[in-house]
Amino acid sequence: MSATVLAIPLWANLLAVAVGSLQGALFASQFRERRVDLLGVAIIGTATGLGGGILRDVLLGQLPRALQTNWYLTVAVLASLLGMLLQRVFNRLVGLITVLDALTIGLFGAIGATTALAMGLPDIPAVFVGVISAVGGSVLRDLLMNLTIAMMHVGSLYAVAAGAGTAVLVAMVAFDVPTYIAALTGTLVTFVIRLAAVRFGWSLPEQRALSRLPRWRRPR
Amino acid sequence: MSATVLAIPLWANLLAVAVGSLQGALFASQFRERRVDLLGVAIIGTATGLGGGILRDVLLGQLPRALQTNWYLTVAVLASLLGMLLQRVFNRLVGLITVLDALTIGLFGAIGATTALAMGLPDIPAVFVGVISAVGGSVLRDLLMNLTIAMMHVGSLYAVAAGAGTAVLVAMVAFDVPTYIAALTGTLVTFVIRLAAVRFGWSLPEQRALSRLPRWRRPR
Amino acid sequence: MSATVLAIPLWANLLAVAVGSLQGALFASQFRERRVDLLGVAIIGTATGLGGGILRDVLLGQLPRALQTNWYLTVAVLASLLGMLLQRVFNRLVGLITVLDALTIGLFGAIGATTALAMGLPDIPAVFVGVISAVGGSVLRDLLMNLTIAMMHVGSLYAVAAGAGTAVLVAMVAFDVPTYIAALTGTLVTFVIRLAAVRFGWSLPEQRALSRLPRWRRPR
Repeated sequence: MSATVLAIPLWANLLAVAVGSLQGALFASQFRERRVDLLGVAIIGTATGLGGGILRDVLLGQLPRALQTNWYLTVAVLASLLGMLLQRVFNRLVGLITVLDALTIGLFGAIGATTALAMGLPDIPAVFVGVISAVGGSVLRDLLMNLTIAMMHVGSLYAVAAGAGTAVLVAMVAFDVPTYIAALTGTLVTFVIRLAAVRFGWSLPEQRALSRLPRWRRPR
Repeated sequence: MSATVLAIPLWANLLAVAVGSLQGALFASQFRERRVDLLGVAIIGTATGLGGGILRDVLLGQLPRALQTNWYLTVAVLASLLGMLLQRVFNRLVGLITVLDALTIGLFGAIGATTALAMGLPDIPAVFVGVISAVGGSVLRDLLMNLTIAMMHVGSLYAVAAGAGTAVLVAMVAFDVPTYIAALTGTLVTFVIRLAAVRFGWSLPEQRALSRLPRWRRPR
Repeated sequence: MSATVLAIPLWANLLAVAVGSLQGALFASQFRERRVDLLGVAIIGTATGLGGGILRDVLLGQLPRALQTNWYLTVAVLASLLGMLLQRVFNRLVGLITVLDALTIGLFGAIGATTALAMGLPDIPAVFVGVISAVGGSVLRDLLMNLTIAMMHVGSLYAVAAGAGTAVLVAMVAFDVPTYIAALTGTLVTFVIRLAAVRFGWSLPEQRALSRLPRWRRPR
């Protein structure tokens, strides 16, 4: 019923941060008419890459992992600047970046959920922390750019993919599956849902009210 | 001079969260042209219901209460979906929801302020924490929806009601009134001010500069 | 290699908060068409003055210093209201306020970076915490007012000044310079860069892609 802490190697963590930051910087650099300067792109990229993990650690009352070594901030800033400078190159690699990004969401979700479980949090809060870890960076990006939060709009399964993956992970841990296998499966579920959503144009239905209820109550 | 922790029963806490989430979801579902999807409504409702309490606990350096049991998140998500599905029903009950919401603000403010006092915080920070607890959810809702913060505009006494109620609570505790009585009184003050503001259209004056000052200094 | 905590006298801290809040309230009061009410101006001013320090303490997992005494919130609210009431007077003193504000950024950055170093954080995270302390208030102000974050746009060296000052501070501490001297130098560097940017219209280049790279690869 309890999870061991996932000992993700530092390089894998840093790769995930780099992909997040790169993707954030590429996103920010589309908005030329807003005259975001060099530093702005670096800030948005860094926030995208590190935001999820920092939110996770602040919620859990821990000193953010990104502040414990020099590596995270360095990698995030360099990846952001690289994304800005080489945007023409990376924009041709959009397929590769989408794949890496889906992997990143899955990995962040798994790290978040297992950290929460290892601290003794119940199942549903653990899923919540996993989702926040996975999508926090992109929410922070949209807040800082004063855009509507992409995640909440029709046509994006970002949060759904993260939620499904971490839910599977948490359920497996509840059935005593070893943490590593559960984390791998959860990451894979998120990865597959996210890519399938991009590939096949899946989306959630728009919000909808039960408009038939009144009709059923007054059948003439 | 010091407060005991308010032992609000869990069901009362959950009812307050449910009212907050319901109200957040009803608010979000008005914005059809923004194409907020199912998940978006659930996110906004959940953030509205839980935001104040999470902000309170993060500020006070505690593990958020909403992450300590499965109940809070479950109730918040279900109340949000209910609000979305039955918006026609609830929109006819707008009076009832306003009343429940006023009670919710009062209760959240009282929980926040007494928690802060019990931790040994001074009076003014305790009022501040109470107000953040009461209005944090609706501020988060507006941030996530990329709207201007309703609270800061003419015609809303949301924060004033919360501030007055928690100030009364803190003052009573300073005069050694038992915590429960102080909390009850504070909740009631918030409740009455908020409802009176809605009922009689009370509002704060717009910001104003002392334009008469220069005239007085140059009397022709 | 390690820093001692900077024992900034309380009055200096409060003066910095007052300048931040005054400046935030003056900023908010420009937007008359948004009908921000009395309370809104107080909230924005308070958030501007206290935001950086609260973000710093939350990131470092400490109870915010602004919640430990009655002074911070009192000073922030009073300075905000003063800024609103006497905006005509203060708008004539724009030069003085810019100078005080540059000093405030420098001081906040130095407090943030030395606090982080004293907790044992590595160098780059210490610079990061310093910058967040310095600019956090103005970022929060822009978020609450639903404006694009001023800091990220061409023509503002706010964050650059804070970054350069705290980087100098951290480097000096790494070379065993006493904390007070390092903090003084760092504050001064931030102060000079910020004022020079205002005076001479310095700005960072806009973001830019390496557009020459493709040309070099296809030389015809």
